[in-house]
Amino acid sequence: MYRTCTCGELNIAHIGKEVTLCGWLQRSRDLGGMTFVDLRDRYGITQLAFNMETNAELCEKARKLGREYVLQVSGVVAERSSKNTKIPTGEIEIVVNKLTVLNAAKTPPFTIEDNSDGGDDLRMRYRYLDLRRNPVRKNLELRHNMAILIRNYLNNLNFIEVETPFLIKSTPEGARDFVVPSRMNPGEFYALPQSPQQYKQLLMVSGMDRYFQIVRCFRDEDLRADRQPEFTQIDCEMSFVEQEDVLNTFESLVKFLFKELKGLEFDSFPRMSYADAMKYYGCDKPDTRFEMKFVELNDVAKGKGFGLFDNAALVAGINAEGCAEYTRKQLDELTDFVKRPQVGAGGMVYIKYNADGSFKSSVDKFYTQDDLKAIADVFGSKPGDLMLVLCGDVEKTQKALCELRLEMGERLGLRDNTKFAPLWVVDFPLLEWDEETQRFYAKHHPFTSPKPEDESLLEDKANWGKIRANAYDMVINGVEVGGGSIRIHDRDLQNKMFHTLGFSDEEAQNQFGFLMNAFEFGAPPHGGLAFGFDRMCAVFSGVDSIRDFIAFPKNNSGRDVMSGSPSPIAQAQLDELNIDLREINKAN
Amino acid sequence: MYRTCTCGELNIAHIGKEVTLCGWLQRSRDLGGMTFVDLRDRYGITQLAFNMETNAELCEKARKLGREYVLQVSGVVAERSSKNTKIPTGEIEIVVNKLTVLNAAKTPPFTIEDNSDGGDDLRMRYRYLDLRRNPVRKNLELRHNMAILIRNYLNNLNFIEVETPFLIKSTPEGARDFVVPSRMNPGEFYALPQSPQQYKQLLMVSGMDRYFQIVRCFRDEDLRADRQPEFTQIDCEMSFVEQEDVLNTFESLVKFLFKELKGLEFDSFPRMSYADAMKYYGCDKPDTRFEMKFVELNDVAKGKGFGLFDNAALVAGINAEGCAEYTRKQLDELTDFVKRPQVGAGGMVYIKYNADGSFKSSVDKFYTQDDLKAIADVFGSKPGDLMLVLCGDVEKTQKALCELRLEMGERLGLRDNTKFAPLWVVDFPLLEWDEETQRFYAKHHPFTSPKPEDESLLEDKANWGKIRANAYDMVINGVEVGGGSIRIHDRDLQNKMFHTLGFSDEEAQNQFGFLMNAFEFGAPPHGGLAFGFDRMCAVFSGVDSIRDFIAFPKNNSGRDVMSGSPSPIAQAQLDELNIDLREINKAN
Repeated sequence: MYRTCTCGELNIAHIGKEVTLCGWLQRSRDLGGMTFVDLRDRYGITQLAFNMETNAELCEKARKLGREYVLQVSGVVAERSSKNTKIPTGEIEIVVNKLTVLNAAKTPPFTIEDNSDGGDDLRMRYRYLDLRRNPVRKNLELRHNMAILIRNYLNNLNFIEVETPFLIKSTPEGARDFVVPSRMNPGEFYALPQSPQQYKQLLMVSGMDRYFQIVRCFRDEDLRADRQPEFTQIDCEMSFVEQEDVLNTFESLVKFLFKELKGLEFDSFPRMSYADAMKYYGCDKPDTRFEMKFVELNDVAKGKGFGLFDNAALVAGINAEGCAEYTRKQLDELTDFVKRPQVGAGGMVYIKYNADGSFKSSVDKFYTQDDLKAIADVFGSKPGDLMLVLCGDVEKTQKALCELRLEMGERLGLRDNTKFAPLWVVDFPLLEWDEETQRFYAKHHPFTSPKPEDESLLEDKANWGKIRANAYDMVINGVEVGGGSIRIHDRDLQNKMFHTLGFSDEEAQNQFGFLMNAFEFGAPPHGGLAFGFDRMCAVFSGVDSIRDFIAFPKNNSGRDVMSGSPSPIAQAQLDELNIDLREINKAN
Repeated sequence: MYRTCTCGELNIAHIGKEVTLCGWLQRSRDLGGMTFVDLRDRYGITQLAFNMETNAELCEKARKLGREYVLQVSGVVAERSSKNTKIPTGEIEIVVNKLTVLNAAKTPPFTIEDNSDGGDDLRMRYRYLDLRRNPVRKNLELRHNMAILIRNYLNNLNFIEVETPFLIKSTPEGARDFVVPSRMNPGEFYALPQSPQQYKQLLMVSGMDRYFQIVRCFRDEDLRADRQPEFTQIDCEMSFVEQEDVLNTFESLVKFLFKELKGLEFDSFPRMSYADAMKYYGCDKPDTRFEMKFVELNDVAKGKGFGLFDNAALVAGINAEGCAEYTRKQLDELTDFVKRPQVGAGGMVYIKYNADGSFKSSVDKFYTQDDLKAIADVFGSKPGDLMLVLCGDVEKTQKALCELRLEMGERLGLRDNTKFAPLWVVDFPLLEWDEETQRFYAKHHPFTSPKPEDESLLEDKANWGKIRANAYDMVINGVEVGGGSIRIHDRDLQNKMFHTLGFSDEEAQNQFGFLMNAFEFGAPPHGGLAFGFDRMCAVFSGVDSIRDFIAFPKNNSGRDVMSGSPSPIAQAQLDELNIDLREINKAN
């Protein structure tokens, strides 16, 4: 060993102890007769003291060291004269009697500090230096700790982690696969798994009964801040369970994680139907850290001669408490916000409930004070509040109002990153109509089971959109951290489902054949879910981007700027794989 | 929940308890008035009793059930009249009062028994049924348990598991990469990692200090029983350590696993130099469950007029205790064995040390009884022993004698699968001469450090073959379960190493650029190792094939016969990826 202690463990109790430490030079300060060096490792920072009077040679040597040099020092733990109470090692320093430079270092392109001066691109190019910074290192430590906790928790419940293959069969359904040409089987390809969905269902057929896996998954989709081409799932499945059992099992897991990692305790997570989530929050992953629910105003807002409202399928709004004093500028900002293409509203109506009980709105021409009072009553508003109202198509209005609600939550500081509001969204629709292809798609996947009480609705196409599934998402702070379903294990129902989705028998066999065959040999009732592990880490840390929780992430072009991947490969490799590259028209 | 208990937990203490169980029908027996059904789940087997007299309808229903039907039964725990003491639930049965068929099952193509009647191909095609069998399920359970133990052990030592990318840069050095075409970056490819080697070294540069990862790796090589295109490594790396620290850390880990999983305790693992391993066992992964070391006979066997020995670079043999009575047939079998192309010897000389003190050999023409006595003395043989001698080139003779030794160990029952003989093989050569390309290659990889005392040998090409590396393998029962090295962290030494390997600066930069760049910013001394996880599971179970420890393995053509992967993909997929398939001449 190069060291006897780490840079994070020595304190006043170790005074007089002979120690050897290793680490990186964080910073050094020359104070005439003394030179102080902060030595950093993963565990902390320890101050090194060099005295010009007692050991001039060593002190001179110390003065020549640069930032991020790798050092080994031996010395004696001594009490500091000027203490730093902010860090555990702040009361001591090492009076160094031996200094070895284990490695020199070029000056890093950004400082290794909590608040770095490196831009995102630079940080990613030198990710190995970025990872030296406390906040980034702590993210990876949180991720590691969370994984250990999850594994032990599930292991104690008799879950078994089974590793499923990465080189699997490509299926056209769902998102785009990454594929891997097979050298041994020319003209054929493996796919990288988008999830181990089919394998975990096979494991249920195998009787494995309680399975989990923390596993890398791959989707060749266009990227954004919370999507990476490779991401990690906590994939879980159970046999002989109903929806309630799955929800209880994994709600307990997440409560356990909150307790262990955050010291927080929760009652039962609220359950919200998909229908209510859409009605009150306009999306299926509501941020319930704050209320500000949607209020439908069709009854009170229509019929007063305001054409926009009169012709709208939905008039709905939110009540922003205490915002009646919003200025023209603030209101204009909000109007601009809802008119952005990503939000998509045509405009916004406001109604101020003034402190004196009077109303001021952008539609005073059409609404009397009494009319506005009636609307305010539906909102449950009180003097000092501001009502913001949108109208139009049901779905578009819900979506826009959802964005407006989140924006108001942000402005009012209601999206507090130290607060956590977990819930289950349940009763998702089984099927989703696609205008473009004029057919129904499985909202979750084709093995998701309908609610037994809705099964009869499968008989009449007119009712397909109303069928609810045994499908559920866990949502925390407006982020879908996980989701799953109870699967169909009955062959007749599965066939009916495939026909509903417009699959011929042959197509079903071709795409899902090996799973369907397996189901003929005694499939138990089963269901499960998968958590997005990267996202879960981000949510627990109150951070939006999952990139901060991935050691070596890729950028929005799927590129790792540090290693320069992807990259061209040798002609010999292409030859062995029996593939040719097409001429790429660079002008395109 | 569909059940209140599993099929493995009920015993005599539960008599009278109302229970509900779920599982698969293992077998049923009609005994006139009674029908007994064995219900199986992952946890065990519980007997169900149906009585024709008390409940004829239910009993009739039970009689119609087929093998592997999925059942849910409710009933009362009762004491059995005829007990089975071999299983924990063997003293009780469930008197069933409710039976639900959760799913029917086609008759499986092989029986779900410990000794199945399914051949290997059939088992793989229906792997989900094979996994229902106890021995296969137990293999996966062992694997899961081992992973949990490893993670907790390393976590307690401050190791952090960091997930490294799967879509990385392809490097031409080493084995063949699997590659993944990038849609977003046409003409460019990712590679799947052969190991996270470069990333774990980057993490050391990051200060992560103690890293591990249980991680899938990929090699596009031709396959055999102990190789799969995808396999799992326990990948580990430490900073500020010397070789001794790495050996001690991971020896303790493996001792811990033996203790926990096998109840076995070990003293320190023996250390054997690579030179001794070759000299005494003819290979770098000796099976030390038995002695039968090589004995060199050049001094005593040459110069007696036997041309084959006289002209050989090496005459060496092994002493098989108590085998002097081997018949002509047995000796011929051994001669045939060593002459196989895979073994490669030209022939075999035997010397029997008869019980009466006389000798009988296949070279009596050339050797007197005294000559043979002198040889026997070198062997340390005693009356009743059989000496087997090979000769020729050093390397070829060592290889063939190694095989013969293992064969004799097998025949004498010395390769006992319940015995474990772990050791470290150390002091591997740094460089290996390749006749074909007439250059030296790194035996381990180009970042492996030479032993400091051998560093000066780098100056003279004549000495390169003699340089020993800080590289080590852990070997158990003749299987290399893991290996690693202390890495070079000094830039000058690394450059010298690249030049030794014949890399130009540009080539080195091109292949290892991002790691070399990282090393300029303060690389700590570091080293590590990787265990083959699949292999470790197999060795712990005394099994040769790693396939039994992989849930869904591939065959020797890299094919998953269950799912039918790899497979052709759609033209649209090729179009998106900008690649074309070549015409494959099917006649080839």
